[in-house]
Amino acid sequence: MVKVAIDAMGGDFGPEPIVAGVLLALKKKKFLPILVGDESEINKFLTDEFRSKIEIVHTTDFIAMGDSATDALKRKDSSIYRAVELVRNKEAQAVVSAGHSGSTMSVATLRIGRIKGVIRPALATPMPTYLPNKKTLMLDVGANVDCKSEHLEQFAIMGEAYAKDILGLEAPRVGLLANGEEKSKGNEITKETFALLKDRDTFIGNVEGSDIFNGEVDVVVCDGFEGNLVLKTAEGTADAIGKILKLNIKGSWLRTLGAILIKPAFNALKKKMDYAEYGGAPLLGVKDCTIIAHGKSNAEAMMNACFQAINYVESNVGKDIEEGILKHS
Amino acid sequence: MVKVAIDAMGGDFGPEPIVAGVLLALKKKKFLPILVGDESEINKFLTDEFRSKIEIVHTTDFIAMGDSATDALKRKDSSIYRAVELVRNKEAQAVVSAGHSGSTMSVATLRIGRIKGVIRPALATPMPTYLPNKKTLMLDVGANVDCKSEHLEQFAIMGEAYAKDILGLEAPRVGLLANGEEKSKGNEITKETFALLKDRDTFIGNVEGSDIFNGEVDVVVCDGFEGNLVLKTAEGTADAIGKILKLNIKGSWLRTLGAILIKPAFNALKKKMDYAEYGGAPLLGVKDCTIIAHGKSNAEAMMNACFQAINYVESNVGKDIEEGILKHS
Repeated sequence: MVKVAIDAMGGDFGPEPIVAGVLLALKKKKFLPILVGDESEINKFLTDEFRSKIEIVHTTDFIAMGDSATDALKRKDSSIYRAVELVRNKEAQAVVSAGHSGSTMSVATLRIGRIKGVIRPALATPMPTYLPNKKTLMLDVGANVDCKSEHLEQFAIMGEAYAKDILGLEAPRVGLLANGEEKSKGNEITKETFALLKDRDTFIGNVEGSDIFNGEVDVVVCDGFEGNLVLKTAEGTADAIGKILKLNIKGSWLRTLGAILIKPAFNALKKKMDYAEYGGAPLLGVKDCTIIAHGKSNAEAMMNACFQAINYVESNVGKDIEEGILKHS
Repeated sequence: MVKVAIDAMGGDFGPEPIVAGVLLALKKKKFLPILVGDESEINKFLTDEFRSKIEIVHTTDFIAMGDSATDALKRKDSSIYRAVELVRNKEAQAVVSAGHSGSTMSVATLRIGRIKGVIRPALATPMPTYLPNKKTLMLDVGANVDCKSEHLEQFAIMGEAYAKDILGLEAPRVGLLANGEEKSKGNEITKETFALLKDRDTFIGNVEGSDIFNGEVDVVVCDGFEGNLVLKTAEGTADAIGKILKLNIKGSWLRTLGAILIKPAFNALKKKMDYAEYGGAPLLGVKDCTIIAHGKSNAEAMMNACFQAINYVESNVGKDIEEGILKHS
C-alpha cells in the first residue's frame, strides 16, 4: 500500500481542509496517509471511521507563509521537515504539502536528494486548455528563477517522462516557451536550449504564450520566472474578464437574467480553471514523489494531490527521468 | 499642422484599412497625412473630398511580413524606408506603420536615430484593466529580447514620461515585472534593476503578471521577451475562455438565450480587449514619433494610431525622455 506523508499544518486554512481532503481520498482509494502535525488539531477533524486508517506523526512546529525558506532547513521539528524525513527514511514513498512552497522545495531537494544527473528539480503544473480533458504541463513554474540552457533541457526531459508515465501520452509534444514560433525567435538562453533540444523526436520547437491554452502542445518548458509570469497573467486576465462582465451586467435586468441562464457555462469554465481539479504540482527531479499543493487548497484539491502522489509512486516516472537524463548527459 | 508619414502598404490587409483609417482621422482632427505607397492602389480608396487634404509619396516596393528586418535597411525604396526618411528629412514629424514591425523598429532606430543617452528604444503598449477608462502601459513588448538592468531602468524613465505627457497621469506608478511582489523576488536582472529604480518617487516596486489587469500600476517595465509572453498569454487566456463558454452554451436553448441577453456585456468586454481601441504602440526612445500599429489593424485602429501620433508630436514627451535619461546617467 502506498504510504503518503502529508504536511497537515501547511496551507492557508490550517489542518481542516487537509484532513478533510485525505478522508475524501481514502473513500475512493486505498492508501496509507501519514498526517504530520499537531495531533490534537488533526483529531478534531478525524472521524472514528477513519482513525484506524491513518497514522499521525505528532509535532507542533510548522513553517508559516511569512517565514523564509532557508529557515525550514534548520527547523527539524517542523511539520514539513518531519514529513520529508519520513520519505528520506523510507517510512513513506511520497510527501504532499500545501504549506510554504519554497520550504517544501528546499527541504525535499536537500533531504530526499536529486535523481542522479538532475542539476535542478522543477515544479510542473497542469494548465487548462479550451479543449475538454486536455491539459498542458508547464515547467518550471517557480523552483528556478535564473536558468541556463542545460537546466531547461533537463526540464524538457523530465516533463516528457511525466507526460508519458502519468498523463498517459504516448508521444507528448514538447515545446520551448519563446516570443515567437520561428526558430530565429527567443532570447540567448532559449536559443541555446533550442539547439540542445532540436534533435529530440518529441520536440516541436518554440511555442508562444497563447499555445499553452490551445491544445497544440503537451509540455511547455520555461524558467521559473517566466512560468510565474504566465501563471499570474492567465489568472489576472481571467479575473479581469470576470469583473468586466460583472460590471456590464450589473444594473440591467435583461443581462442579469442572461447571466442566470448562462451560469452553467460559467460554472464549467470555473471548474476548468480551478486548480482544485488537479490538486498540486509535482516537483520533478527529486528522488521521491513530492507534491506541492496550492496554499489555498480546499478538500477536493488535497484529495487530488493525494491521488497525484499515489499515481506518481505507482508509475515508473522516477526511473524514466533518471534514464532520460543519463542518456542526454 | 502636424505632418504624419503613413506606410500605406504595410499591414496584413493592404492599403484599404490604412487609407480608410486616415480618412476617419481627418474627419475628426486636422493634420496632414502623407501616405507612402503605390499611388494607384492608394487612389482606389481615396474620395474626392479628401484628395486635397492628403499628400502621396509614390513607391511600389514594400516589406512583406515574411521578409527579414535587416533587409529593410537595404530597400531604400520600400514604403517604410521612404516614410521614415520623410521624418529624418523633417518633411514629417511622425511615422505610423502597420507593416513588418521588426523593419519599422530597425529602420526608425537607425535612420531617425535615438534620443541622446537612450541605449535602446522600447515598444510600449497599453494593456486593458477591468476598470473603465484605465489602461496599463507595458514596455518593452518586443523591441529588445535580451536586456540588461540599465536598459530596463531607461524603459522605466521613458514609460514614466509617456504616462505623464500622453496619458495625463501626474504621478504614474511604475512597477517592475517580477515573480512576486516582495523585494527579494526577481531574477538576476530584475534584482539589479530594482536597485537602480528603488529611489525614484514613482517606483512602487515589483509587480506580478496579474497586477497588469487590476489597475494597481500605471507603467509596467519588462524586457521584450517577457512582454511578449504576457501579451500572448493574456490573448490565449481570453481566447480559451471564449471558446470554453461557447462549447458549454452550444446545444442548450436556455444557455443560448442567456448568451443573447448577455451579449452587450460581452461586446463591452471585446471592446475593452480590442487593440483597435488604442491604435498602436509608440516606439519610445527614437528622436521622433514612431507608432507601430498591429498588422491586423482595421480602419478604427489606424485612425487611433494617427491620433496617437498627433498627441505625441503635440506633447513634450521627446524632451522629457531626454531630460529624464540625462538626469539618471
